[in-house]
Amino acid sequence: MDPRPRPRTMSLGAFVHETGQHVAGWRHPDAHTGAGTNFGQMVDAARTAERGLFDLFFLADTAALSLAGDPAVQGRFGKAAKFEPITVLSALAAMTTHIGLVGTVSSTFSDPYLLARQFASLDQISGGRAGWNLVTSNNEAEALNHSREAHPAHADRYERAIEFAAVVQGLWESWDEDAFIRDKDSGMFFDPTKVHALNHQGRHFQVRGPLNVARSPQGRPVLVQAGASDTGRGVAAQLAEIVFTAQTTFEQGQEFYGDVMRRVTEYGRAPADVRVLPGIYPVVGRTKAEAEEKFAYLQSLIDPAVGLSVLGHTIGVPNLAQYPLDGPVPDMAITNGPRSRQALLLEAARRDNLTLRQLCELNAGPRGHLLICGTAVQIADEMEQWFRGGAADGFNVMPAWLPGSLTEFVDEVVPELQNRGLYRTAYEGTTLRDHLGLPAQKARG
Amino acid sequence: MDPRPRPRTMSLGAFVHETGQHVAGWRHPDAHTGAGTNFGQMVDAARTAERGLFDLFFLADTAALSLAGDPAVQGRFGKAAKFEPITVLSALAAMTTHIGLVGTVSSTFSDPYLLARQFASLDQISGGRAGWNLVTSNNEAEALNHSREAHPAHADRYERAIEFAAVVQGLWESWDEDAFIRDKDSGMFFDPTKVHALNHQGRHFQVRGPLNVARSPQGRPVLVQAGASDTGRGVAAQLAEIVFTAQTTFEQGQEFYGDVMRRVTEYGRAPADVRVLPGIYPVVGRTKAEAEEKFAYLQSLIDPAVGLSVLGHTIGVPNLAQYPLDGPVPDMAITNGPRSRQALLLEAARRDNLTLRQLCELNAGPRGHLLICGTAVQIADEMEQWFRGGAADGFNVMPAWLPGSLTEFVDEVVPELQNRGLYRTAYEGTTLRDHLGLPAQKARG
Repeated sequence: MDPRPRPRTMSLGAFVHETGQHVAGWRHPDAHTGAGTNFGQMVDAARTAERGLFDLFFLADTAALSLAGDPAVQGRFGKAAKFEPITVLSALAAMTTHIGLVGTVSSTFSDPYLLARQFASLDQISGGRAGWNLVTSNNEAEALNHSREAHPAHADRYERAIEFAAVVQGLWESWDEDAFIRDKDSGMFFDPTKVHALNHQGRHFQVRGPLNVARSPQGRPVLVQAGASDTGRGVAAQLAEIVFTAQTTFEQGQEFYGDVMRRVTEYGRAPADVRVLPGIYPVVGRTKAEAEEKFAYLQSLIDPAVGLSVLGHTIGVPNLAQYPLDGPVPDMAITNGPRSRQALLLEAARRDNLTLRQLCELNAGPRGHLLICGTAVQIADEMEQWFRGGAADGFNVMPAWLPGSLTEFVDEVVPELQNRGLYRTAYEGTTLRDHLGLPAQKARG
Repeated sequence: MDPRPRPRTMSLGAFVHETGQHVAGWRHPDAHTGAGTNFGQMVDAARTAERGLFDLFFLADTAALSLAGDPAVQGRFGKAAKFEPITVLSALAAMTTHIGLVGTVSSTFSDPYLLARQFASLDQISGGRAGWNLVTSNNEAEALNHSREAHPAHADRYERAIEFAAVVQGLWESWDEDAFIRDKDSGMFFDPTKVHALNHQGRHFQVRGPLNVARSPQGRPVLVQAGASDTGRGVAAQLAEIVFTAQTTFEQGQEFYGDVMRRVTEYGRAPADVRVLPGIYPVVGRTKAEAEEKFAYLQSLIDPAVGLSVLGHTIGVPNLAQYPLDGPVPDMAITNGPRSRQALLLEAARRDNLTLRQLCELNAGPRGHLLICGTAVQIADEMEQWFRGGAADGFNVMPAWLPGSLTEFVDEVVPELQNRGLYRTAYEGTTLRDHLGLPAQKARG
């Protein structure tokens, strides 16, 4: 990479789901239909994002399929089956050349040695493009797939997550950069003083190491976190190099950005080592009215029962069907589920005086992320405001349906951002850290 | 696939290690040098095997790197770092079109829900080419990487393996073949009566399911097992569709083959549903003398201390350095390690009156597998004898070094097998089950 400083530009993630981010996206007449079984469609999406010079391609994950509730409603849920992230990202590594590949794996039920190996191996395969989105599991369905009766309490699972990440990052430091000699004549394959056991002895994990995967091209795969509760923000500030977040107003975005960067500093880290990427849900039209019409059409495809079921899942309240759909949004107790998302949605409901149906629709679409319906110029305006105004270092772009919502963004919004000097016109480097402008992770000296 | 019966032909696996199967293979002047960090070299190997119409490409695995013993010896060990199998096989799926992709994952420290997802996803990505080699972990180094002080006792880990496999195979039956409707007009994405929870409640695992990956193209990825002890053979007979094995004489091969097939029948399964593939370690020459010379050259590259260390690892005895290298092979107690390999090697030592050094060399090369040094005709003769004589359904071919040992086999031995009608001249189908001639796995009716 050219070592000269370059102007600060946005980072973009393509936050893709096989059936689109919109709960009814798969019903769009032009949407792909092979969701979760057609790898070629994933390749198309990744290559479109790479054509758009995105920093990264991001896959969320849940290690469960809930069959709770009315079976007839379940069958209308388009996010029932998907690829497992590590496998599909590894395959995409072979089909792409530059774009970062970020996968979600929960720390709640996973094993840190295996996870460290898989992401280090993905980083090798991809030439330094791997990132791990560390989440904690927050639904009972996942616990019941992993020999547990219930998932751990909120605070416990964050404590485990922090120790988990420390183990994984420690294992990624097993090999010094120049450990491999591979000298055929002398027979020395590696320098044994340059490989290190971890000898981690913690409350949740005891891991000796070293990792049996070589030091990865990035030193460490990029660590991503999306905690938004108080505890979650602390974890993000302590560990994350990318912070994903859902913020629906510029002011909220500024507050979150400032708060995370303040916490980052408190942990002795530099704000320059962290990128905050709010999710945005762009709907592009030739006019604002056309964009709104396109979004309204998607919303019209939502089956009301599905909307209610998804809302219940999102906010961790299973029995929403007891409330009148066109009445006010009921008060809800704090749950052991995803707290910050619940708070965000309820705040939006109070602020905009939404009915339960309207909240369902709000959630079923952007799920608490920033919806921007407009022309490419209007979308770029809002992105520029957030980027220049201390609310974002870039965005995690959520295509409502595939392929259309992604191709429209790449073909129309990306050139507008480039014209403004806000976005790269070519990849400057080859690794995900290069794209993000994050410092390389040096081995211990 | 053409439904007509075809003549019985051999199945071939390419059992590849990044640095070659021979412990000193990486020191060969023409050997690849980027072992474990160069994905392109893995692609080359997989494509060479695919050019040779192999049924499958197979990667072994150990979830540890042992740093026991003298550091100077450790540094001479060429198998220190490798790709993690699931990730690299997923990437290879995108770079190949027909060859089966079989990865090893231990049931001892893994999670069955994650494993079921990853292999089902690999099967989707590859269009039905995935296989899982179920192993149990047998070294302390793996235990110490997974928050355990010691690995479980021999019988316990097989009991866990059987339950683990039942969970995984049950999860692979979560979705009926015609479960997905994806009807945009009605909004029905899947038929909820065609997806099934598992509700497994066992001694080691409690897993509700269903799997959140769609039914894979093969129904179930192919299950591979390599148990050779009495317990291990039982597990293989009960579960495996491919049985890998190490047998060094035709008579041993016949005994093993007959015994496994007898046990298969006892479990109510048909021998036609199982393929037994002994490992072979071919060294091809224009004359037998040339082949033997090539092998002797490889053996000459073994550092004696490495040979001793590897033997100790293979047979689970750490303190071999206390015995004179040119003296007789000492008696050894039964360990909690890999019993059958220990027995095989010790039997060979007694039979051929080997010194400890000679046993080291035998083990460091073929590691108890069938070494065949000869011309392509001689190698094909021995393969034909085993194949026609009830000792094998095919072979797991172990290239001593890469790329040469694999390309020589493909270019010289494969055509000889084809000339004899023992081996395909083109892939007849597209899935690993097609290649093996195994019955498709039908969903429950």
